[in-house]
Amino acid sequence: MSNIKNIAVLTSGGDAPGMNAGIRAVVRTGIYHGLNMFGIRRGYDGMVQGEIFPMDAKSVANIIQRGGTVLKTARSEEFRSPEGRQKAYEHLKKLNIDALVVIGGDGTFTGASAFLDQFDIPIIGMPGTIDNDLSGTDFTIGYDTAINTVVDAVDKIRDTAESHDRLFVVEVMGRDSGLIALRSGISTGAEAVLIPELEVDYDAIMKRLDKTRKNKSSRIVIVAEGDKEGGMVVADKIQANFPSYDVRLSILGHIQRGGRPTCMDRVLASRLGVASVEGLLEGRKGEMVGLIGGQVQFTPFGKAIKHIDKVNTNLTRIVEILSL
Amino acid sequence: MSNIKNIAVLTSGGDAPGMNAGIRAVVRTGIYHGLNMFGIRRGYDGMVQGEIFPMDAKSVANIIQRGGTVLKTARSEEFRSPEGRQKAYEHLKKLNIDALVVIGGDGTFTGASAFLDQFDIPIIGMPGTIDNDLSGTDFTIGYDTAINTVVDAVDKIRDTAESHDRLFVVEVMGRDSGLIALRSGISTGAEAVLIPELEVDYDAIMKRLDKTRKNKSSRIVIVAEGDKEGGMVVADKIQANFPSYDVRLSILGHIQRGGRPTCMDRVLASRLGVASVEGLLEGRKGEMVGLIGGQVQFTPFGKAIKHIDKVNTNLTRIVEILSL
Amino acid sequence: MSNIKNIAVLTSGGDAPGMNAGIRAVVRTGIYHGLNMFGIRRGYDGMVQGEIFPMDAKSVANIIQRGGTVLKTARSEEFRSPEGRQKAYEHLKKLNIDALVVIGGDGTFTGASAFLDQFDIPIIGMPGTIDNDLSGTDFTIGYDTAINTVVDAVDKIRDTAESHDRLFVVEVMGRDSGLIALRSGISTGAEAVLIPELEVDYDAIMKRLDKTRKNKSSRIVIVAEGDKEGGMVVADKIQANFPSYDVRLSILGHIQRGGRPTCMDRVLASRLGVASVEGLLEGRKGEMVGLIGGQVQFTPFGKAIKHIDKVNTNLTRIVEILSL
Amino acid sequence: MSNIKNIAVLTSGGDAPGMNAGIRAVVRTGIYHGLNMFGIRRGYDGMVQGEIFPMDAKSVANIIQRGGTVLKTARSEEFRSPEGRQKAYEHLKKLNIDALVVIGGDGTFTGASAFLDQFDIPIIGMPGTIDNDLSGTDFTIGYDTAINTVVDAVDKIRDTAESHDRLFVVEVMGRDSGLIALRSGISTGAEAVLIPELEVDYDAIMKRLDKTRKNKSSRIVIVAEGDKEGGMVVADKIQANFPSYDVRLSILGHIQRGGRPTCMDRVLASRLGVASVEGLLEGRKGEMVGLIGGQVQFTPFGKAIKHIDKVNTNLTRIVEILSL
Repeated sequence: MSNIKNIAVLTSGGDAPGMNAGIRAVVRTGIYHGLNMFGIRRGYDGMVQGEIFPMDAKSVANIIQRGGTVLKTARSEEFRSPEGRQKAYEHLKKLNIDALVVIGGDGTFTGASAFLDQFDIPIIGMPGTIDNDLSGTDFTIGYDTAINTVVDAVDKIRDTAESHDRLFVVEVMGRDSGLIALRSGISTGAEAVLIPELEVDYDAIMKRLDKTRKNKSSRIVIVAEGDKEGGMVVADKIQANFPSYDVRLSILGHIQRGGRPTCMDRVLASRLGVASVEGLLEGRKGEMVGLIGGQVQFTPFGKAIKHIDKVNTNLTRIVEILSL
Repeated sequence: MSNIKNIAVLTSGGDAPGMNAGIRAVVRTGIYHGLNMFGIRRGYDGMVQGEIFPMDAKSVANIIQRGGTVLKTARSEEFRSPEGRQKAYEHLKKLNIDALVVIGGDGTFTGASAFLDQFDIPIIGMPGTIDNDLSGTDFTIGYDTAINTVVDAVDKIRDTAESHDRLFVVEVMGRDSGLIALRSGISTGAEAVLIPELEVDYDAIMKRLDKTRKNKSSRIVIVAEGDKEGGMVVADKIQANFPSYDVRLSILGHIQRGGRPTCMDRVLASRLGVASVEGLLEGRKGEMVGLIGGQVQFTPFGKAIKHIDKVNTNLTRIVEILSL
Repeated sequence: MSNIKNIAVLTSGGDAPGMNAGIRAVVRTGIYHGLNMFGIRRGYDGMVQGEIFPMDAKSVANIIQRGGTVLKTARSEEFRSPEGRQKAYEHLKKLNIDALVVIGGDGTFTGASAFLDQFDIPIIGMPGTIDNDLSGTDFTIGYDTAINTVVDAVDKIRDTAESHDRLFVVEVMGRDSGLIALRSGISTGAEAVLIPELEVDYDAIMKRLDKTRKNKSSRIVIVAEGDKEGGMVVADKIQANFPSYDVRLSILGHIQRGGRPTCMDRVLASRLGVASVEGLLEGRKGEMVGLIGGQVQFTPFGKAIKHIDKVNTNLTRIVEILSL
Repeated sequence: MSNIKNIAVLTSGGDAPGMNAGIRAVVRTGIYHGLNMFGIRRGYDGMVQGEIFPMDAKSVANIIQRGGTVLKTARSEEFRSPEGRQKAYEHLKKLNIDALVVIGGDGTFTGASAFLDQFDIPIIGMPGTIDNDLSGTDFTIGYDTAINTVVDAVDKIRDTAESHDRLFVVEVMGRDSGLIALRSGISTGAEAVLIPELEVDYDAIMKRLDKTRKNKSSRIVIVAEGDKEGGMVVADKIQANFPSYDVRLSILGHIQRGGRPTCMDRVLASRLGVASVEGLLEGRKGEMVGLIGGQVQFTPFGKAIKHIDKVNTNLTRIVEILSL
């Protein structure tokens, strides 16, 4: 049915836990269907430079539990130009590669779209980013691990906050999206969560902190890095408003990207890896594969990367109710 | 609108991580809506014995991250009889308790149905069980933590299996349901997964183990405890079929129940806790609250406890493809 | 033999994992020997304010596994003056408290010395600080947990460093001591470790980084916060020297203080808690109890707080050898 | 000074976390001193079969954090005979291997002694076993990780025990040694610990359990697998003595061997790896390298494997005092 014989897989953009589980699933599904499978190192840059090599079932053994990506990832200026993409295409041609699976975020799919427009080679995308900021899937690969890492970290900080009667402002990842902040805020019993999607109502926050003054010996305020002001400004404002508080700031930083993937991320990456190869064999292209309500769904790249506001106002309301 | 003024919450059945997050959410949501909140110790047994006490916002502070249930749980023979339930009802009356939230599994909801039939007191159920064997919710509270505990354990066992070129049969929880086995099997790259819902095809399993003989230096077979034969028989059969293998059995046991809940279980329990109280205030009763496709849904007790076969044949197929 | 009947325990200075295990051991050992036990909240400040309460065996149940300190900790300006200490002493007198166990670091023992000089009340100190910067014990309570937290975090960062071919400068705690940096550096295969006790030889570091350029795709440099220049300056210097590197900075911050204590910290705190009470009963005072080579030892406060240079040059040499 | 030019390293006996850190340290220290380094797969069996290969600095990259052993381990019947050892020796000769580092336990060192007697080839041993049952080192590589794994597991079981008011008998590893049981018992607040080195005084245990009946809602009894009766018998006896208790048994099994090594095990393995190679260069042989009181020490194989009773009666006393 399908003419596809040789598929290559790459990871691009920021690394996310579960990417390795995704690579493994893509490679093994291809082999299961009798295809030849290839890996491309360092994303589009490696494609431009021709860092492409065959992968067999064994080459993805014992990686499902590892963070990061064994294929590595990088930015590529060259791939943004038609000439760069032409070089990449020639490397693929030389190895008779018919189709691609690309794992990454919106930048990855934008690149894939440009490549597809230029050469009409089938490409399926898999959502691999800790930010969960794509349409067409309930969760992206890496998101569940990242929020659990944040929750572990904030649980530790809460120990210190409780011991010293302190308020901690914790800045978490999420440049355009408050989804890491929101779920980790609910999970750690944060008193307030500030996210880029919503205007901050400082009056309301200060009132809530004041109201809970008697009940609480520790307080946690979670701020997404993409928030207009950022953790440091928020910490200063709270300190200025409540001079008697002992306010501290903690910026979690890069620990949020790494680590062994959770069960959910491994299952998600495995399911999407199978579906992406089988999608290509069914003739699909230019689409991102995702899970919506537990079912595999395909969404055109152009729609997947549109930052539809996923902020669940139920979640923001829950922060407010439970921070009593 | 609602006449409900006093709500009590209890946990029943096997403990599950996230139950504390659920209790916290129920208590704080009630207080948020101006209600008086009560806790019942040790499930229906405590209700029969009158172990009921008021709870305020502070009484659920600092429990969201803790495994088990601060309200404790127990079996109750007495509650199965109308006389036992009568005693329980009188304890509620004395404290003017108008409504209940019960957190547990199918036994919990069966008990709740009987009580509701007898006294027409509004009850909402929350799905709290590691087995994920209820209809009306994609995931039960505790399931995500339990599968991550299994995955952590099997990752450790894989280290030893790799070092010694061994095959490990790992028995995991799931008396009637293979959902823990299936997802943890995919997540740990298990070579085979045996579950109660499916007839075991030993020929196929032996063939698959044989086929992968060359590629693999370690092998993991996951068996749900509810499987017809159980881990020990499976281990013996594999050993008999492959005398040269070094086959070992590991029964994970009770570690699967405890531990700090994952982010997903905390968020799930928090959302359902809010929804259960607000459901009561809207006049609901005799229903379990769940999340389906990310949305809050209510399902009558009778339907929730029906063991509809949730086995996703996609998942069993994925085990086969990826164990190449 | 001993006239001691009533002992109070407090925690002071920065919180450290294992303090709760220490409190538990002190309280239960006192009860075991027939004494009345008291807790003092918020360190010396609580002593000055009279926040003292009786503790029984149950009051320390289920805390051995928890980070932070259930007795809380705080700074106290007032306790630095003879008048403040006089107030504290009167609160103790009122409750007939004969002796104290204080858990903390050098500030804690300095305060204890002043109190002991003024009122001749027996005090034994327990080393509770993540920094391991005291004489008279091989390890302080909290140190082992803190270095494991650092190692977990750097393992995660290494995933990202490997995926992106990056160099990460990671700043860890240790204002006056490089012991957290040194052991976590060895444990994470760091290419270099910068500590306050040693002059930084940038030439040597740059040479080592350059030499390993071919072998390595990721590099980690650990910097103790007490290092003369700090993580940011170090990162800038490396970037300036190797413009082609992708250098990032991560400051781990407060997550290093919290978390469930490791086995080693729980055993250490338990052993020292027993020994501190039994030391008091044997007539000891003004000493810190520690473990040296696995044996309980007592060291006068004045000697314990002297920052003897504990830097094991074997360890710095090991970093160099193993970062090949 | 030394004539040694080529060193091979192997792991033998049960795998232990930190073995990889030890292999890495041996290989890199050899390279640092200008030697050629080799790995032997699957312990003495691989040596007999000639599974020997060169190792460079890169071949041990990114393994310090991984459980198990990348060199694998196995039993060898053949190596027990002079003829088998002769075969092994000839494989070494062919590659001009002058000296060996063997990582394992008492069986490993017994084999090394026989080999050394037969061929006078320098061998240094490193203590790699989770049991901590060797003389000549305070701790063996893997012990600290194993006890932390046990503590994590028992903390989880305690959640369930607390929720259900149960008594759990937990069987942990330690065929001849109660050291895992003892330290994990102290760390988890176990009510009793049964170890092979001490006669069990059931009367005393039953009295202690009875005495604590009022204070406690959960109870944990830790039994070393080498205990005369084992977990199941102990559980039955307690159940018979206290029919009202809800007694459960949990056998932790193989999860105790694997997992990412703790900081302590990584540092220990790194230090001993450096010392073993440098010991060989100084002319040492037939000795195990260990850390005693933080200092590197060498102990003849014959003495290291003598099961001197390491049971610290201080520790058994601490269990009793703190289980009040």
